[in-house]
Amino acid sequence: MTQIQIGFLIYPGVVQLDVMGAHQVLAFPPQTTVHLVGKTFGPVISNEGVILTSTTTMADCPPLDVICVPGGGLGQVEVMKDSESLDFLKQQSITAQYVASVCTGSLILAVAGLLKGYKATCHWAFRDQLARLGVEVVPQRVVIDRNRVTGAGVTSGIDFGLTLLSLLCGEPVARTVQLMLEYDPEPPFDAGRPETAGSTVVNSLLQAGKPLMDAFWAQTQATAAQL
Amino acid sequence: MTQIQIGFLIYPGVVQLDVMGAHQVLAFPPQTTVHLVGKTFGPVISNEGVILTSTTTMADCPPLDVICVPGGGLGQVEVMKDSESLDFLKQQSITAQYVASVCTGSLILAVAGLLKGYKATCHWAFRDQLARLGVEVVPQRVVIDRNRVTGAGVTSGIDFGLTLLSLLCGEPVARTVQLMLEYDPEPPFDAGRPETAGSTVVNSLLQAGKPLMDAFWAQTQATAAQL
Repeated sequence: MTQIQIGFLIYPGVVQLDVMGAHQVLAFPPQTTVHLVGKTFGPVISNEGVILTSTTTMADCPPLDVICVPGGGLGQVEVMKDSESLDFLKQQSITAQYVASVCTGSLILAVAGLLKGYKATCHWAFRDQLARLGVEVVPQRVVIDRNRVTGAGVTSGIDFGLTLLSLLCGEPVARTVQLMLEYDPEPPFDAGRPETAGSTVVNSLLQAGKPLMDAFWAQTQATAAQL
Repeated sequence: MTQIQIGFLIYPGVVQLDVMGAHQVLAFPPQTTVHLVGKTFGPVISNEGVILTSTTTMADCPPLDVICVPGGGLGQVEVMKDSESLDFLKQQSITAQYVASVCTGSLILAVAGLLKGYKATCHWAFRDQLARLGVEVVPQRVVIDRNRVTGAGVTSGIDFGLTLLSLLCGEPVARTVQLMLEYDPEPPFDAGRPETAGSTVVNSLLQAGKPLMDAFWAQTQATAAQL
């Protein structure tokens, strides 16, 4: 059986659950092989300080059926400036069956020019930045537009993963994985989006996140000026 | 500010999302420090082939405010037999504020004698095994009984993490993290528990999982005979 080759780009500062939620879903069926693609072999420190380890490098990565870009903290800004990473994504996208992202990973795809003329989504706090990069932003949890599949913030990676898996392997496989992972969520609070979280929570998070969002905006504006 | 020390036991064959879902939630607030505790320093291969890396060892681990045990594949059976791991859990539980688990991790807690007389939950397919170990099984997503906090299968780690975080740091902090992680789940299918997944999906999964469940049962029966 030919394996479906799925690769997640990983980089210093990547948000680990942007990768690991979808990874758990996509790695379960025997017909998939999942790669963590780094610039180099070895440890990559996530935004949370978790040590991830690449399984291949951009140079050695096989042609992927799915290339997926997770979001990150400040480290993501470096990726948005890094021609090697952007070239790797452009190259893989030529032959990939699906070009995908979770969270702010869609900003990286956009900077690489891979969402031009496509609908896509992003973490709620960065959707204006995705629009600034010329993308038609659809504020949904998972957005499919032709072969682009994008997820919203961090935990959307599980919904994204199941949706993508159903495209790759069919709905019965996706349903089986959902049951295996007992994905029957019961959030203890109704605070998962700004419309329900309440203004106190929204404002405190926006204030804490301002330096990060400003750093992203600087890079987004610089890129948008060249588009 | 004194940091809240949270430790996840990791071991070969651990299910990575059992750890990473709760880790993402619990690591976000500045007042927490999260450790991945291994038998040794260095790489630990998850059930999915993901290379995790311990940040401390059982011998070097500081006293934890929260000790959390994630579930695993076949590798978990070795942990259930491993006196060093069970002794570590027993020792930490004496002073820990919370003794916790995700997925089949509760079977390890039970084998260590740490759920005797407590209500707890587990992955749906292993609840009979948890009951066989003398635990009062409550088939809920997250179960709190005094200072025991247990989660159901794999993806429950996020609900578990938010619940535990609200106990540790208060509800406003947990709500802020929920918004940051955009945890507003929209499962694409209604297949997250056996009651809704349909008998075809349930039966195919139980058939595929039979060798694993049999290996767990053998160890559960052996332990139960000594309780």
